[in-house]
Amino acid sequence: MVLQIGVIGGHKASPAEIKVAESVGEKLALAGAVLVCGGLTGVMEAACRGAKRSGGVTIGILPGLRAEDANQYVDYPIVTGIGDARNSIVVRSAQAVIAVAGSTGTLSEIAYALKSEIPVISLNSWDIPGVHQVDKPAAAVELALELADGKG
Amino acid sequence: MVLQIGVIGGHKASPAEIKVAESVGEKLALAGAVLVCGGLTGVMEAACRGAKRSGGVTIGILPGLRAEDANQYVDYPIVTGIGDARNSIVVRSAQAVIAVAGSTGTLSEIAYALKSEIPVISLNSWDIPGVHQVDKPAAAVELALELADGKG
Amino acid sequence: MVLQIGVIGGHKASPAEIKVAESVGEKLALAGAVLVCGGLTGVMEAACRGAKRSGGVTIGILPGLRAEDANQYVDYPIVTGIGDARNSIVVRSAQAVIAVAGSTGTLSEIAYALKSEIPVISLNSWDIPGVHQVDKPAAAVELALELADGKG
Amino acid sequence: MVLQIGVIGGHKASPAEIKVAESVGEKLALAGAVLVCGGLTGVMEAACRGAKRSGGVTIGILPGLRAEDANQYVDYPIVTGIGDARNSIVVRSAQAVIAVAGSTGTLSEIAYALKSEIPVISLNSWDIPGVHQVDKPAAAVELALELADGKG
Repeated sequence: MVLQIGVIGGHKASPAEIKVAESVGEKLALAGAVLVCGGLTGVMEAACRGAKRSGGVTIGILPGLRAEDANQYVDYPIVTGIGDARNSIVVRSAQAVIAVAGSTGTLSEIAYALKSEIPVISLNSWDIPGVHQVDKPAAAVELALELADGKG
Repeated sequence: MVLQIGVIGGHKASPAEIKVAESVGEKLALAGAVLVCGGLTGVMEAACRGAKRSGGVTIGILPGLRAEDANQYVDYPIVTGIGDARNSIVVRSAQAVIAVAGSTGTLSEIAYALKSEIPVISLNSWDIPGVHQVDKPAAAVELALELADGKG
Repeated sequence: MVLQIGVIGGHKASPAEIKVAESVGEKLALAGAVLVCGGLTGVMEAACRGAKRSGGVTIGILPGLRAEDANQYVDYPIVTGIGDARNSIVVRSAQAVIAVAGSTGTLSEIAYALKSEIPVISLNSWDIPGVHQVDKPAAAVELALELADGKG
Repeated sequence: MVLQIGVIGGHKASPAEIKVAESVGEKLALAGAVLVCGGLTGVMEAACRGAKRSGGVTIGILPGLRAEDANQYVDYPIVTGIGDARNSIVVRSAQAVIAVAGSTGTLSEIAYALKSEIPVISLNSWDIPGVHQVDKPAAAVELALELADGKG
């Protein structure tokens, strides 16, 4: 089965966070991993853009009822219509999750990932026991792939 | 955006239904459509097998918590963990839905599709007002593509 | 455990359907059953109004994010935020379900009830195999209580 | 509309946490608030037991498919069947939430509450920015009622 890695973070993001998310998406694609995210703007869009730039595949698990809400870099929109309850689906569909900054929505995703024993790597995101803190996109992707592998 | 077509039906299926579902999957793939389904056995597995045989892409929206529950022809497992409530997500993620026989689970999907104004084509499935009845896989796929297009 | 009976039907309803739903709610309350519904207008509101008039208890399982969306006769609003996916919760929280007319949303609820082997009684609602058709509110409530009991 | 206050925490709990949860339930009931929780064991059961001892009303929003999974102090079981995705429903159905210790499931609930701007009071639970930390059940209930009121 293909490796699916989640990228989570805010739908609003600073220029620095955007740059980090793009780099994460790019490196995941180069490693052959499929990117799973919430499908919207901010960190999600930047990660998808990075992935597509490197020829990757992207899945966007949307909260609303419209496929059109997906950012333009989402290959496969999943239209849940269940609002933020879809956060649990984003992380469960991934073998490891990389968090780029983010607010309470991201925190709910981290909580679900930890509960499901899905490894979480943080790039300047929440500092919760069990979450792996790293400094650089390259380190995040490397660790995600390693931990996902150990999991599979 | 890529065309995503849903195939719904029972996780148990007769040999005749399996053959029909395989043919539907095959023809969808040849037409370049992505197949969305519930990811399990029966009609879902047969449709995915048909799609992969013709080089298509398949997405399986699973009710449980394990990606491993997906049939072996699912490219991208979406792990919802929300049980049969995921039925609404299967149909919403498609621009048109083809139903192959099926029981009450399939009926819930048809109901959600009709509510969301997503066209439903039936191959020996439920006869509900608004559902298009056809006889052959080729006719089902043709009509699904036509109606999905009109929708987009 | 207390008996919880679901009442399902459209958020828009004709005067005749409103009258039927009110009577159903009234009779359920008199029988000591708790009324579970989708919490909104139309059949849901009429059933709740009937139940409160007879001193009953009402639970409204809302699709949106605002408790304020509940009709004024709901005692306990459950704020799901998962949209129409909440339909499956309405029926699962009941030991039997009475359908008053209704459209595709009601059909999805009937399908979920049948799948969960929860008895469904129809008052001019969908004619699906397995659904009990009756003519009068009194007969619907009587049969619901009887079948729920057999289930418990 | 009646005041609904959530009590969240682990399904496993230490004797000290059980005692705290019971006291919270008791005081909520004495204040006339309806207790909303996840309906299972541990903190949830203790809070319900406390509430019933003081004549309160309890609602249990269950993850599974069986009303029988509710602890014996739940008046009204809501049978979601959506697993841990029901965590978002527990907090949204409350005007304020009291967390008693708890692990990652509780963290997901706190995250959802903060995202929905529902006040969270912690009794030895997660220390997340925005969560109110208190020491005693009485203080937790008092603050929950005050903040819920400000919210209504």
